[in-house]
Amino acid sequence: MTNWTEIDDIAKQWVKEAGTRIRQSMQESLTIETKSNPNDLVTNIDKETERFFIDRIQGTFPGHRILGEEGQGDKLRSLDGIVWIIDPIDGTMNFVHQKRHFAISIGIFEDGKGKIGLIYDVMQDELYHAFSGKGAYLNDTPLAPLKEASIEEAIIAINATWVTENRRIDPSILAPLVKRVRGTRSYGSAALELASVATGRIDAYITMRLAPWDYAAGCVLLNEVGGIYTTTDGEPFTFLDNHSVLAGNPAIHKIIFDDYLHADR
Amino acid sequence: MTNWTEIDDIAKQWVKEAGTRIRQSMQESLTIETKSNPNDLVTNIDKETERFFIDRIQGTFPGHRILGEEGQGDKLRSLDGIVWIIDPIDGTMNFVHQKRHFAISIGIFEDGKGKIGLIYDVMQDELYHAFSGKGAYLNDTPLAPLKEASIEEAIIAINATWVTENRRIDPSILAPLVKRVRGTRSYGSAALELASVATGRIDAYITMRLAPWDYAAGCVLLNEVGGIYTTTDGEPFTFLDNHSVLAGNPAIHKIIFDDYLHADR
Repeated sequence: MTNWTEIDDIAKQWVKEAGTRIRQSMQESLTIETKSNPNDLVTNIDKETERFFIDRIQGTFPGHRILGEEGQGDKLRSLDGIVWIIDPIDGTMNFVHQKRHFAISIGIFEDGKGKIGLIYDVMQDELYHAFSGKGAYLNDTPLAPLKEASIEEAIIAINATWVTENRRIDPSILAPLVKRVRGTRSYGSAALELASVATGRIDAYITMRLAPWDYAAGCVLLNEVGGIYTTTDGEPFTFLDNHSVLAGNPAIHKIIFDDYLHADR
Repeated sequence: MTNWTEIDDIAKQWVKEAGTRIRQSMQESLTIETKSNPNDLVTNIDKETERFFIDRIQGTFPGHRILGEEGQGDKLRSLDGIVWIIDPIDGTMNFVHQKRHFAISIGIFEDGKGKIGLIYDVMQDELYHAFSGKGAYLNDTPLAPLKEASIEEAIIAINATWVTENRRIDPSILAPLVKRVRGTRSYGSAALELASVATGRIDAYITMRLAPWDYAAGCVLLNEVGGIYTTTDGEPFTFLDNHSVLAGNPAIHKIIFDDYLHADR
């Protein structure tokens, strides 16, 4: 019998501890290396933080498996059993360039279903957390169920990239949406953007390519507040593959899908 | 003889006091009214905060004049003498919808020249402040002079609006810039976006229409760290009129102006 309360407690403790270590390490200079392209920065702190989680998870829960951005975890073809889906630093560009606006993102799944979601805004010391069926919280404050909103009053998180020439979507599809909504924002951390949807600060978030570690924790939060997430084609998430993300409150998700992404054209 | 140290001290004190009042008022419910269009929300707190500053300025410095967003100040045709340029809540949409990510913005000018700039991120309790010739600070930490940056490594604050159909700029002008830079962001508060340029977290900020109270304080900060600001036509700011804003570190400002806004086309 899995002791989920123990897992939840210890995961939160590790996230806070990792955050403290990150804040300490930031005093020291960063050794930055570039992976495949200049948008894909990886820092030593990123790798060390992933290693921190892997060592603890393997030491404490040897049966659990790990899916992580930095590739030091397991190579997974299924989500059978208990899987920790980890992004040690979500928003690496913000981390390097701004030294704020980044998060630790951890989703803990059981047989493909999200049980625990943790998004920790390290510099703000804000922990967004959810446990399946028990609600979502920002630190000690419960998050309210998402309210109906009109599209004209909505604030949407969308990067300007997706309404300019790019490889993933015709820019003319979402440009009219940008015109229709009250405002758009872009924060540079998928985890924090999903957390913003979960708190109602943002009514929807649209992006064309995320990895499971970018969205896993956010989806557990969204489940608890009645948020909806699909790919931009309306498909459910696999939590194993990279794909597009449309996440929002139900009314706004439906309008964006029906009127823009899935409109006959 | 004007006692600028006194003005600086008291202005900071008022800004902090106004911030405390705003945080207290946010506990109470907001009475929101819509001005000319749904993007232009005004709240009672907005008006009360402007009134707070006007009453104190007129009581303490009867010779000073006031230019403010809510129109309770003076009708100015020049910046002769000492003028306080005030936005009581910059980022009203964030204020209403997010209850964070907004700022009090105050520029104090003498005969058209910026002497004091204060941008107070109310919920973060972060005061960005500058005094002409004496440097810029975030709380007690001095801001470093802006460093050279390459455009490919730059993060630019630009709203998706300006690369989609809009009344103010051909979307094809800036779309290639979005593609070229490392990333774009949009925070929804001009004052905080200018403060982000002053700290180096953002390398440039582009927007097509701001009022003096949106940009006055930010410009005083930028002066102290070597930031450059012009309209998108390359004109200097009047601090009396609404116009476009291109603000950034010198290298990035030059590239955006030369290669995009002023390119032969």
